[in-house]
Amino acid sequence: MNKPQVPDFLKNIRVVLARPSHPGNIGSAARAMKTMGLTRLYLVEPKVFPSEEANVLASGAVDVLEHATVVGSLTEALSDVTVACALTSRRRELTTPLSTPRETAPELIARARDGEQVALVFGNETFGLSIEEVEMCNRLVTVPGNPDYFSLNLAMAVQVMTYELFSHTGVDVNYLKAEGEAASMAEVEGMCGHLDNTLEAIGYYERRNSERLMRRMRALFNRAGVLREEIDILRGFFKQVQRVADGSLPPRDKQGE
Amino acid sequence: MNKPQVPDFLKNIRVVLARPSHPGNIGSAARAMKTMGLTRLYLVEPKVFPSEEANVLASGAVDVLEHATVVGSLTEALSDVTVACALTSRRRELTTPLSTPRETAPELIARARDGEQVALVFGNETFGLSIEEVEMCNRLVTVPGNPDYFSLNLAMAVQVMTYELFSHTGVDVNYLKAEGEAASMAEVEGMCGHLDNTLEAIGYYERRNSERLMRRMRALFNRAGVLREEIDILRGFFKQVQRVADGSLPPRDKQGE
Repeated sequence: MNKPQVPDFLKNIRVVLARPSHPGNIGSAARAMKTMGLTRLYLVEPKVFPSEEANVLASGAVDVLEHATVVGSLTEALSDVTVACALTSRRRELTTPLSTPRETAPELIARARDGEQVALVFGNETFGLSIEEVEMCNRLVTVPGNPDYFSLNLAMAVQVMTYELFSHTGVDVNYLKAEGEAASMAEVEGMCGHLDNTLEAIGYYERRNSERLMRRMRALFNRAGVLREEIDILRGFFKQVQRVADGSLPPRDKQGE
Repeated sequence: MNKPQVPDFLKNIRVVLARPSHPGNIGSAARAMKTMGLTRLYLVEPKVFPSEEANVLASGAVDVLEHATVVGSLTEALSDVTVACALTSRRRELTTPLSTPRETAPELIARARDGEQVALVFGNETFGLSIEEVEMCNRLVTVPGNPDYFSLNLAMAVQVMTYELFSHTGVDVNYLKAEGEAASMAEVEGMCGHLDNTLEAIGYYERRNSERLMRRMRALFNRAGVLREEIDILRGFFKQVQRVADGSLPPRDKQGE
């Protein structure tokens, strides 16, 4: 299976960092974005930018930093945006709708797919977003978490939000799955019959309820989702047991004599 | 609305870091865990631990580090565990089922709730998990992301996985929502009638299709989900417009003369 493509419409979703203080966080945020297919970073009055520290922490995402747009105000960063989400974990006395990343993501993805510009707005590391900044946004987004320790680092918040968006793009991880053909019901049933004969042949059933035992074994194999290759290994094993049992094969310590 | 409690069964889910190299990552992982209500950290042969750097990066989650269990092997960290998830982003030639955090989370939460011990196993920053380590686990978990830049930092992977688990606990963010009573259909309709009268009174409809206009306005208010308080503000506004229009109020520049 081929590697899937990152959908092109993700370019319509930007990450806006309002007044970030620590250059390292800018770099980590860029890396987090790129791992989730986002590339457009806006920096509102960054304290230090560009910087070596940001480049180091961006790792392979230095291109995101190089193409970042530095602006003087949040208004500027949002001028062509239709939906701006303020990431906040504080209780705000605003009637702007508050939702989780998971609740918001489908709408954001749909709008970006339609060509609208969407912004994810993150505040300063220490002070968060000011009330004025929040009021410029038309959505409040809160990452659910421990109510007694809500100390999500800036880049971590970017990671969670962009992960959530990416998970709604439909790009899956199937290309990483090992190939393996699932066995059919008939193949599993045939193997179970073989096991049943084998248990019978070696005298395992004596005084045991063979039907109940086989029911348990069948349930186990069905639960596991047996692969064809595994059926082959198991049947080979049963065959060998039967050979040993009926004496058609010399016991191991006499082999090669 | 009161702050919800972190569910007690989250103590049955542990994070295992296998051979972590950088003390800073141990600290950041502890912080990430605690933001999502997890507290049990296992460290398999950490290069440096404890350390000042880990403590600094753990921020308010130093307690997680203080209670961390340091072990000499992954086997030890998993001895009482029933489900161990290997976090990996590489294609593995193993028939262990591979899924995303979102697909796996409900099962992990259900098992933890039932009292089973669940482990999330993360590999070394540079080398990831070895094949032997992966084979000790009975689930493979891959965070979906940019197939061309899958460079999720260790602590970021911990953050995403634990966020995903937390999001399935049912602990919501409603306690952060501002209170506001939604207006009923009748209240919205009453306000729209008031708007209709007002537009009529000030001669706005002349040559315009009043029905079509009111349909648009009604759609706008319904889409917004109007609150009671907003209805009051709007009706107050319409009332004032009507007063100005019928001359029952002196124009503003003559007030107070």
